[in-house]
Amino acid sequence: MKLYDCATAPSPRRVRIFLGEKKIAIPTTQVDLRAGEHLSAAFRAINPDATVPVLELDNGVRITDAVAICQYFEDIQPEPRLFGEGAEDKAIVTEWQRLAERDGFYAVMEAFRNAAPGLKGRALPGPADYAQIPELAQRGRSRVLAFFKMIDAHLADREFIAGLRFSIADITTLVTLDWATRLKLTPPANADNLRRWHASVSARPSAAA
Amino acid sequence: MKLYDCATAPSPRRVRIFLGEKKIAIPTTQVDLRAGEHLSAAFRAINPDATVPVLELDNGVRITDAVAICQYFEDIQPEPRLFGEGAEDKAIVTEWQRLAERDGFYAVMEAFRNAAPGLKGRALPGPADYAQIPELAQRGRSRVLAFFKMIDAHLADREFIAGLRFSIADITTLVTLDWATRLKLTPPANADNLRRWHASVSARPSAAA
Repeated sequence: MKLYDCATAPSPRRVRIFLGEKKIAIPTTQVDLRAGEHLSAAFRAINPDATVPVLELDNGVRITDAVAICQYFEDIQPEPRLFGEGAEDKAIVTEWQRLAERDGFYAVMEAFRNAAPGLKGRALPGPADYAQIPELAQRGRSRVLAFFKMIDAHLADREFIAGLRFSIADITTLVTLDWATRLKLTPPANADNLRRWHASVSARPSAAA
Repeated sequence: MKLYDCATAPSPRRVRIFLGEKKIAIPTTQVDLRAGEHLSAAFRAINPDATVPVLELDNGVRITDAVAICQYFEDIQPEPRLFGEGAEDKAIVTEWQRLAERDGFYAVMEAFRNAAPGLKGRALPGPADYAQIPELAQRGRSRVLAFFKMIDAHLADREFIAGLRFSIADITTLVTLDWATRLKLTPPANADNLRRWHASVSARPSAAA
């Protein structure tokens, strides 16, 4: 088994934190996104979607989506549970992981990819080239701030994003917040719940991934 | 248990088809999206995200995301398996369901919501108002066509989108294609594999949902 990774990129960081929580170590191959290695013919032969992370199984099958990769590891090593336990808890974790992805992670991606000078013509990940849309960068920034406010209110009486334990919903939210911070998109000054949560989950050894 | 639904809307249709495959019948409450009922104070008290579907459990807990709702039903009634079976198959189903959602379903949503006269100021679902971005409508249309081409090639030697059985990846792709067709975004003339697959999955009783 092997993971195609990029140590500086947010999507594969979701998998790295997940593996850290599970205490699973697997060999990795670094793909240099800044040098455009993911767009090379060699890498497109590995993943036509031209994205990382990619998990290559021992039988050669490749899984090319961060959440699908995490789910694979949850199945082969269930403990500690990061997708919840029992039908209701699992549904709540999935709901919040997807909400954090849709309103947080993808909104940061919109803000970043539609504005970064190095990503002109590459406003979306994937094999096709799309022009940047400056209005979409601005909308992304608005959405990220709305997401921070919503999550801050949600965390008023909760230790974790979903359920009673650390889960993949916390991982997605943590990676989103740290990525946004690199883009100088920080939570509002009064987002005390979000800051407390962030300090707590950032102190976990897995967060160093 | 009760499902907040809208019989004409694509997101809850994913759940309706899923329930049809499982042969599960539950009471539904129709939410009139065209009349803006989802934006009313009464419905926002049920779901602050102002979207359908919403599954209300007997203990009052509400699940507000289509895929999380489907996963809940997979857990309480595993057969027939619609998320795959075994770690590898499940990962592949999740990968393709997410890819169909990201490159298909959300692309149709972009094309639709950024252009429909009735959705001015409502370019995204959810509680916040965002202006339409005409460039995004156009980009959405390009992405949908790219998605159709990719799925058509993928289906050249496959009966289903992922794995050896009908799955939630087929459901997401079917709902995407039917929604796109309503917007006059149809597969390319030579997309024979996609048409064959569409005829086959549309003949399932669940597809009438």
